This record gives sequence, C-alpha cells and structure tokens, in this order.
Amino acid sequence: MGNSAIELAEPTMLDLLSRYGLDVEYVRSSGNTLYARRPEDGSERVVLDFAGGYGSVLLGHSNPELVALARELLERQTPIHAQFSRHPYANEVAKRLNAILHREFDTDEPYYAVFANSGAEAIEAAVKHAELDRVHKVQEVLNAVEEAVAAARAAVEGGAVVAEEAHRALGLPTGDFAALADEVNRLNAERAARPPIFLALENGFHGKLVGSVQLTHNPVYRMPFAALARPSRFVPLNEVGAVRKVLDEERVRLLKPVVVDGAVHLAEQELPVVTGFLLEPIQGEGGIQEVTAEFAAEITAACEEAGVPVILDEIQCGMGRTGRFFAGSRIGLRGDYYVLSKSLGGGIAKAAVMLVRQKFYRGDFELLHSSTYAKDSFSCTIALKVLDLLEADGGRAYRTAAERGEKLAAMLESVRADHPDVVKEVRGRGLMLGLEFHDQSGSASASTAGHAQSGMLGYAIGAYLLREHDIRVFPTASATNTLRFEPSIQLTDAEIDLMEAGLRAVVAVLRDPSGHLA
Amino acid sequence: MGNSAIELAEPTMLDLLSRYGLDVEYVRSSGNTLYARRPEDGSERVVLDFAGGYGSVLLGHSNPELVALARELLERQTPIHAQFSRHPYANEVAKRLNAILHREFDTDEPYYAVFANSGAEAIEAAVKHAELDRVHKVQEVLNAVEEAVAAARAAVEGGAVVAEEAHRALGLPTGDFAALADEVNRLNAERAARPPIFLALENGFHGKLVGSVQLTHNPVYRMPFAALARPSRFVPLNEVGAVRKVLDEERVRLLKPVVVDGAVHLAEQELPVVTGFLLEPIQGEGGIQEVTAEFAAEITAACEEAGVPVILDEIQCGMGRTGRFFAGSRIGLRGDYYVLSKSLGGGIAKAAVMLVRQKFYRGDFELLHSSTYAKDSFSCTIALKVLDLLEADGGRAYRTAAERGEKLAAMLESVRADHPDVVKEVRGRGLMLGLEFHDQSGSASASTAGHAQSGMLGYAIGAYLLREHDIRVFPTASATNTLRFEPSIQLTDAEIDLMEAGLRAVVAVLRDPSGHLA
Repeated sequence: MGNSAIELAEPTMLDLLSRYGLDVEYVRSSGNTLYARRPEDGSERVVLDFAGGYGSVLLGHSNPELVALARELLERQTPIHAQFSRHPYANEVAKRLNAILHREFDTDEPYYAVFANSGAEAIEAAVKHAELDRVHKVQEVLNAVEEAVAAARAAVEGGAVVAEEAHRALGLPTGDFAALADEVNRLNAERAARPPIFLALENGFHGKLVGSVQLTHNPVYRMPFAALARPSRFVPLNEVGAVRKVLDEERVRLLKPVVVDGAVHLAEQELPVVTGFLLEPIQGEGGIQEVTAEFAAEITAACEEAGVPVILDEIQCGMGRTGRFFAGSRIGLRGDYYVLSKSLGGGIAKAAVMLVRQKFYRGDFELLHSSTYAKDSFSCTIALKVLDLLEADGGRAYRTAAERGEKLAAMLESVRADHPDVVKEVRGRGLMLGLEFHDQSGSASASTAGHAQSGMLGYAIGAYLLREHDIRVFPTASATNTLRFEPSIQLTDAEIDLMEAGLRAVVAVLRDPSGHLA
Repeated sequence: MGNSAIELAEPTMLDLLSRYGLDVEYVRSSGNTLYARRPEDGSERVVLDFAGGYGSVLLGHSNPELVALARELLERQTPIHAQFSRHPYANEVAKRLNAILHREFDTDEPYYAVFANSGAEAIEAAVKHAELDRVHKVQEVLNAVEEAVAAARAAVEGGAVVAEEAHRALGLPTGDFAALADEVNRLNAERAARPPIFLALENGFHGKLVGSVQLTHNPVYRMPFAALARPSRFVPLNEVGAVRKVLDEERVRLLKPVVVDGAVHLAEQELPVVTGFLLEPIQGEGGIQEVTAEFAAEITAACEEAGVPVILDEIQCGMGRTGRFFAGSRIGLRGDYYVLSKSLGGGIAKAAVMLVRQKFYRGDFELLHSSTYAKDSFSCTIALKVLDLLEADGGRAYRTAAERGEKLAAMLESVRADHPDVVKEVRGRGLMLGLEFHDQSGSASASTAGHAQSGMLGYAIGAYLLREHDIRVFPTASATNTLRFEPSIQLTDAEIDLMEAGLRAVVAVLRDPSGHLA
C-alpha cells in the first residue's frame, strides 16, 4: 500500500472536520485573523478568529513584538538546550509572576516555580508535587505515632497504667499494653494503606495525559483510561457545603497513645489522604462556568482547615483574560498552587509553569522531576516578554481585556435578549465568554435536531459561521451547546459587529423549520 | 519578604549545581559549542558540549538551516494556533516517517501519527492508545463469551446436555446448566476485574509525568508517586526467556462454553490484560545499554504471540544518532508503536510524535485525545526540515553519525585500554556512547571516594571537566558512574582530541591519592 493518498496524521479527526466543512488549511495568522488557503485557487481567505487557540493568543496571533523577539532570540543563537545549568530567564519569569500574585492577593509569601512544556504537563507536575508533600507528611504522622507508641510503652514499663476506656474502645480485655499496642499498630496500618484521593470539580478540564485526564471530569475522555491512574473524586460546582462534606467523608484518623497523669489514653491523629483540590476559577471546556465568591470562600476555608492544598488551574482563565492576571483574584480565590500555560507562550512558544507557595514547597521535588524541553531560554524569554506586555502602562492590557470583554458580552447579551427562546445564557468575564443555546433536539428542522441529538450543535454552528460568515468559533468541548469566545485584546468594534451579524444569522437558521447549519 | 535576592525557579537544583560549579549561565549556542557568560567580566567562555541536550541536538545547537527556517516561519506568520483544522505539515511529517520506517524495516504497513509536545507526553499518548485498544479488545472478548453462554443456553433448551467434565471442572453437581452459567459468569467477572499491567525494562527511562514515571524504572523517581498511577512490571534487560515468562505469568483466561455434538463443554478464551511492552532499543538514562538482537527476537516473538504491542521509545536513541534512523532497526526490532521526540525538534522546537501501526490503530483515539499546543505548524515544519536534513544525499547524516561515532568510540576505547583498572567499559553506538568508570568508593582520595559513595561520581567528573577543560558532559541519570556522549554530527577530530585530553586528565585525578575532582 502506498501512503501518498492516505492521511496518516489523525485521519478520523480530519474526516470529522471535513464532514462539517471545518477541514480548512490556515496558512497565516495575525491579530484576530487566520488566513485560510482556498483549495480552488490557493488564494487567501480572511477568517475572523474567536477561538483564539483555546485561550492561547490573548495578545493576538503573530504578535509583532513577540515575533520580533523570537526571531532575535533565534538569530543570537539563544541556548535552547542548556539543561542542568543556571537559567536566569526562568527565575525572572518566576519573580515577575510572584510580583503579580503578591499584588493581586496582597501577600508577600514566595511561590516557587517549576516549568513544563504544556498545561497538562504542568498540572501533572503540580499533582506530583502535592503527592510528594503528602507522602512526606504521612511519613511524619507515622513517625509521630510510632514515637507515641514507644513513649507509652516506656511509660507503662515505668509504672503507668492503661486507661480502661482505651482497651474498651478497641474491644480488648483490660490491662495488657502489648495487646493494645498491637491492635493500634494493626488498625493504623490498615488505615494508612488507604490510597490517596485527588479532588476536582465536576465539568472541570485539566488536560488529557494519563494523570491529568483522571482529573478531567468528562467521562468520554476519562473512562477508557480509568485503569491507568488513580481516579479522582468530583465535587459539584458552586454547591456550598459540598467541599466540607467531601473532606469530612475522606478523613482518616490514626490512633495515637498519649500518656496523661500516669495513664495511657488513646487520641487520634489525622492522616493526610487528600492530595489536593484542583479547579479552574472559570471553567473553560465545561461551558464557561464561574466559581462563585461564596463557593470560593468555602473551598479556601475548608481546604485550609483540612491542610489540603488548593491547586488553581489558570491555564485558560488566567494570564489577564478576565481583566485581572489571575481569574481567581476577583473572587478572593488564592491558590496554594498555580498552573499557567496557553497565553504564557504568547501564541508562539510552548510554555507552562506551576507555582507552589513556600508553605507547601518541597525542594527535593526538583531532584525528582525534570523535562528535557522545559525551562528553556526560548520559551522563558518569550513568557517574560508576554508578562512585560501585560503589565505595561500599569496593566493596560488587563483594562483592555475587561473593556473589550464588556463590549463583546453586551453584544452577546443583546442577541440573547432579542431571542431568549433560542439563546439560553451568556456567561463569563472579560475575554472568556460563553453563549449557550437552548437545546435544539426538538427542532422542527430535522437537520438542526439531528446535530443537537448527536451532541454536535455547537460544531454545526461553527461550521455554518465559517462557511457563511468567515468566522471561526467552537463550542466548549464538554458542553457543546455553548459557543466560546476567546479573542485577543486587539478585538475591534467592527469584529464584534461581524460576530453579531453571524450570530443573528445563526438564530435565523435555528428558527427556520428547513434550516440547515451544516 | 522581598523576592529580589531569592531564587524562585528551582532553588534546590541551583544550589546543587553551584556546589559542583555547574551553575554556569549559557548565553549562546552553535554546533557542539555552548558559550557561557563569565560572571567576573561578562565575557564569553567557550564550552565544548558533549551533553547535546540529552540527545536533542544531533544536528547541532542553533543549526543554521533550522534557525533560518524558524525565523522565516515566524516572519511569514505561520498559524501556530490553528487547532481543529487541516494540518498538512503534520501529515507530511507522518508520511516522511512512514517512508523511513518502511525502508528500514522492509514493510509497507502504514503507521498513524498522533502529535505531542514532549517525549513524555508522546509516551503517555502511546500508553493511552494501547489501553484504549486493550479496552476495546476486552469488550470484544466479553461479548464473545456472553454470546457463547447464550448460545449454550439455547442449545440446552433445544435438548443439548452439559458435558460431565464441564461441571466437574467447576466443582458443581452435574446436570444443571443454570448453575454452570452462573459459575462461569461469576468466575469470568472475577478474572475480568483484574487491572491491566504495563511491561517495561529494568533501568528503562520514559519520562516523569504521572503515568510515564511509573514506566521509568529508577525507584528514586518512581516510588514517591506510586499511589498516583498503575505500577508497571519491569523485565530484566537482555535476559532471554524473561519476556515469555512474564507474559505467561500475567496471562488471564476466561471460561467459554462451547457446544460440540449436542454437549456443552468449557473452553478458554484469553483476556488481554497486558496493555503493552515499552522499551528503548538503547537505554539512555540507564547507562547506554543496548538491547541484544537475541533479546529483541524474543520480545518480538513473545509479544506477537500474546497479542501485546511493542512500544519502542526511540526518543533519545532514534532520529539517526546510531547510524540508522531507528536504533532498533539494526537488531531487527520493529515496534508496533514508536515514540519520537528530542532531535525531532531540531534543537529549536518542542516536537514529539507517536506512531501506531495500522493493525493496532484505533481511529476513535483521535476524538478522545488532544493537546492545545501539539501538531502546530511551527514544530511540525521544523520537524519536517530535520527529516530533510537527515535524509539528504541518501542519508549522509546517518553515515556521518556512524563514522563520527566510531571515531569517538575508538578514542574512548583507547582511554579504557590504557586504564582498564579505572575505566570499566565503553558502550553504545554511533553518537550515543557511554563510558563507565569502575566504582571509586574505595579510592585512596577521600574526595573521590566521597563523590562515589554519594552516587555523584559522574557529576564530579563533569564538574572537573567543565572547570578545568571547558567541556560539558554528564553521567546518565540512573547510572551515574557512566558518562554519556551525545554530540552532534558536526563533531570534529579536534573536538574528540579535546575530550580525550580531558578524560585522560580525569583518569590522572582518579589515580591521585590526593585527587580532587570537585
């Protein structure tokens, strides 16, 4: 068989794209524009891009300043492969992120940085770090319990007695310390053998690597690979009380003898079994769903009480898109860990980093975790420039994101207000917006109903907008009735007008009993 | 606390590096040279690099043709973020890799490509794909068994009898088909609940993400994170018979009724429980250890018999370094999957791909797995150019790698021959070579003995070579008495001479009772 005719790079996906007319080839990019090649004559077709690399191009495609820097770095032969040496550019990125974090959360606690090549990789680094910290803490608890048993034994040898209720609590005959110690050790070993658990939010998305996909809620992505990694426990979004309830349910306590007034009693010591709680302050793939301030407060308080680190995935919602650098800062949601990527690479580099606050940081992690490609001069220097551009003029980029976002949201809201029976809701903040359509499974149009019934409505709308309006927009992957809008801060009023015309046309097709999106 | 003075990007690692004088800052790179900045006056210090980005710069640091292409791609605004569209450059990479694979293994079976951002990510994509394939096959087996039970039931209803030995085999009273079916279903459910297992080689290294680190043998990297993902089973390298033995031990068979001549008998049907067998044809971090042709033959035959896919990690040893594109091709070791990265990015891009042969490929994987950063025009186009450069002039790059490697190996061997009591062995192929020192724990030099006893001998040698000879070389991470040499094909005779002088000086220090490496 020759390969010339067959597609070898993900042919099934290309087939799906071509069924929806989404199999266009883009050949150039700039600002909010992607230029497609017209197959018939090779000419350029201008496509207005609201997908924005799923949140990677807040500063626009081919941002001229970033392109110039990237070209310069290459020209001056920046040492991309210099592992196991001093990386001052990485430290600069970390310092800059600390300064922003300290400003937005009014703290001065340092956060240490570990770099990666993608958001999913950085999530896994955070998960690994949290687990290393937990394993160390488990060892400390086990040591403390062991010492307590030894101290009680010594006390008994020195004349102390075992309190009657200690034996009673374990259903043992009174008097014998050795039997008590054996039972305490047996029960503790049994309880300590419990595997750890990671908490994440329902409808959360954190990547698709072996570990991260088990933290991604969508069962379609997660279940086929469930045997490969530890399953997570998913907490419902914005259900106040749910976090405390889950943490209570997962609690494990070891027995620990204590000697009081010459008598051995049994106390309890908590064993850390919850590795961490991972969430997006604004869920992206889950349909642009914001964590409420009330739920954020519960997460913060409950996790702090339980000693469980809060790991914030700001890969998509962070980096300034919502009008502040950290999406969580608006609702007072500060993470013990942060994970950043997407726009950190400025639309050019593959950059990712995870940050751990000093209180939780374990330096030995650096000797256990590494990546050949990560922490390189190229991606770090681009990331540094991205941070420069965001922070310039007292954070003009954040203000622009907020202002452009309000304008875009107002347009989306006007479409919804005019068609509340077709458009269900507008959600999100800044340049991370979602527009949810009502379910169209019962549409009079067989075509529209078919798309809706197969869960492809958002893709069919995207196909229509690309074909008829030269607009690129996709649904959120795990909530496909919701279109997602993540343009760059270069978004113009004219571009918003084009989007509006497109959406109003979509509504018309959806209303049409013979409407045909794709 | 201000952050200006403290190191925030992996401070523990920097501290370790500075203790060995390895905390230099590289500011420029070209060919086999990294230019360090002298802290005292900022001037450039020329350092000869044999680390080669752990195998990422076979074509040299800042390869001029690749740099020119990268700059051009940026200038012409290549659409780096164009997810969910046609990616002809990715398909071109896949086609080119297929052509090479077909040539080196004399086959014409297509291999499908899924892209990633790093070797570790591509390993995890391969692991996920293999597990998806296994889950599908398990379902097929379960369906077949269910149908067989139904068919047997129908036959019994139609007058067939249950063979006496079928009941006897399950310890059941004769005669009752319902009891037999219940017991078959119960036993099968119990057996099918067994979790899958992944096989890998002792001393293998496949990355450090949550899943891949459990396939990496070194317990220091793996054990702290053991609770996060399914543990693997490790097979000893080059122990012929070991693969068959392990596959036999892991075998799970379900019971399946068959109707023969009006009687229901019990047959067995194998359940696929081994997800895959992952290995490097030449182990990198494990100390530059080659798989023998004999062991390769056993792997191929045993895995084929058992229906277990062989996944070859050619991230470090592949891409032409050994004189052929695929390191396994020399020993007839063809993979059902391939994982490539490192030099695929040409020392510039973060590029990775995994290939799956048609026989094992599941198109639905493409709808389950994705990455925002992967399959991008920039890294794919760079990878394509890397393949062009390797394949040019009928594969001159491969011949150069082989020839330069032989020259380098001859030098290493001459050092060993002159000092067989200090240098234990030279291993490897082409430009992937290792030089193992004898254990120096009993050295008369307290300094040398101390380095050896703390497992840091190779790093101390690297520190010495950098300080005294301006040469950058590191040990293999999981076998630290072995120095690893992975320079580019631009390696000159003069550079080999410099390395020789450095190594002979190292030997002199190791022989010196007051010797002090670092």
